[in-house]
Amino acid sequence: MTRVRCRQLAPRIGEPDYNHAQILESIRASGGVDLLVLPELASSGYMFHDEAEARSVAMTPADDRVAEWVEAVPQDTIVACGYPELGDDGVVYNSAMLFDGSGVLANYRKVHLWHEENTVFRAGDERAPVVDTRLGRLGLMVCYDLEFPEYTRNVAMRGADALVVPTNWPLVERPEGERPPEVVIAQAAARTNKMAVICCDRSGVERGQEWNEGTTVISHEGWVVAEVDASGAAECDLDLQAGRDKRIGPHNHLFEDRRPDVY
Amino acid sequence: MTRVRCRQLAPRIGEPDYNHAQILESIRASGGVDLLVLPELASSGYMFHDEAEARSVAMTPADDRVAEWVEAVPQDTIVACGYPELGDDGVVYNSAMLFDGSGVLANYRKVHLWHEENTVFRAGDERAPVVDTRLGRLGLMVCYDLEFPEYTRNVAMRGADALVVPTNWPLVERPEGERPPEVVIAQAAARTNKMAVICCDRSGVERGQEWNEGTTVISHEGWVVAEVDASGAAECDLDLQAGRDKRIGPHNHLFEDRRPDVY
Repeated sequence: MTRVRCRQLAPRIGEPDYNHAQILESIRASGGVDLLVLPELASSGYMFHDEAEARSVAMTPADDRVAEWVEAVPQDTIVACGYPELGDDGVVYNSAMLFDGSGVLANYRKVHLWHEENTVFRAGDERAPVVDTRLGRLGLMVCYDLEFPEYTRNVAMRGADALVVPTNWPLVERPEGERPPEVVIAQAAARTNKMAVICCDRSGVERGQEWNEGTTVISHEGWVVAEVDASGAAECDLDLQAGRDKRIGPHNHLFEDRRPDVY
Repeated sequence: MTRVRCRQLAPRIGEPDYNHAQILESIRASGGVDLLVLPELASSGYMFHDEAEARSVAMTPADDRVAEWVEAVPQDTIVACGYPELGDDGVVYNSAMLFDGSGVLANYRKVHLWHEENTVFRAGDERAPVVDTRLGRLGLMVCYDLEFPEYTRNVAMRGADALVVPTNWPLVERPEGERPPEVVIAQAAARTNKMAVICCDRSGVERGQEWNEGTTVISHEGWVVAEVDASGAAECDLDLQAGRDKRIGPHNHLFEDRRPDVY
């Protein structure tokens, strides 16, 4: 079993030192956790006025702060964290990294940009990574990416056992008693692909914006197995590789049953 | 607003006359209903021993019984109903029809076969129809078809305002308080495509098989707006065309935001 923890941080825009310290503390406190997931743009906050503001706090994966995170990772823990990336090309991306104590395992630039992100970031052009780790094969995408079922399918078909999703879900209306719509979408992505989906949202009001605070861990069967609690974390044990066999019963297979000839 | 009614019938296998009468009665009782949806294989039942048994009750859309259904349709009602089809090619399909008082509007052969259906039916080779009606553009698929997000996306991108889904959902385990997994998948299909999804399941134990009895009407926002009640129907008013504009906010569009270059 894999010990999963999503730490639903509240970054503060314009306070990168505070955010950095908060990430570092979350990493240091993750002893015994196999997979620690932090939110989208955890190092910076989300509600940028413009591209210049995002650029002012953007980092490369070679940044000293990232080196500090890597150095702080307890043995055997893998961490996912969102941050604004300054690319080699001088462009600012909404990115996420997967790293452990040995260094950065994967870096990903969000492909589907939500709302005013379109005025702040450039969309990535590389598909979501699937990284073979000791926990299983981990896919990595960011927030709105998850709402494209073609994309979650693609990651699953490239072998992801679990999809790790740092998010910032702006608060949306929902009927009493319902989960955030993004969680319903994540459950369907899990169920239709037999793939765990692990979403870490954020908290804290930022420039008037509230959030769903919908941090949720979903099994490969599509069921919610952990939601964020009063401590600000969603935590559980999960067999990340339990959905690797895509057969369902003697006659069906989630991928082989696909009929691209009619889609 | 469109008045939608899903009538969750309990067909009896081996009693086609009973099933025919039950369908006819449901159609006759649908005055004032704009869209009446009946289950998959409503004319025959589901738990066939083999292909020969299905063949013995299979019909063509030109069957006299279908003519009786058409004749019974109240003015302005559109009906969806599942049945076993005997094709011109002599092959037996798991099909559904859309019809009104003027005749059959569309016929569809299920493309994704579930479980032992694979030993009974041949899978269809034509994609789900999208039919322009006075209620809006109606897509039509059957049960397990719905669990392929590529397929629901395809129907939405071909213009379906609402997806009509006759189903037979065999009872599956689910955690206390959760909806059937197929409903969660339908909610995600609705939300990610801004398309209403209308699922009519069945009831009644047949050869030991129970059903989810998960009949549900879902809005284009992905919310459940009607579930089956004690009368055996799910019924509501719904604006079927409310999700036709696929923009969400000033910067996003559900279809134009897709990035096939990375899928």
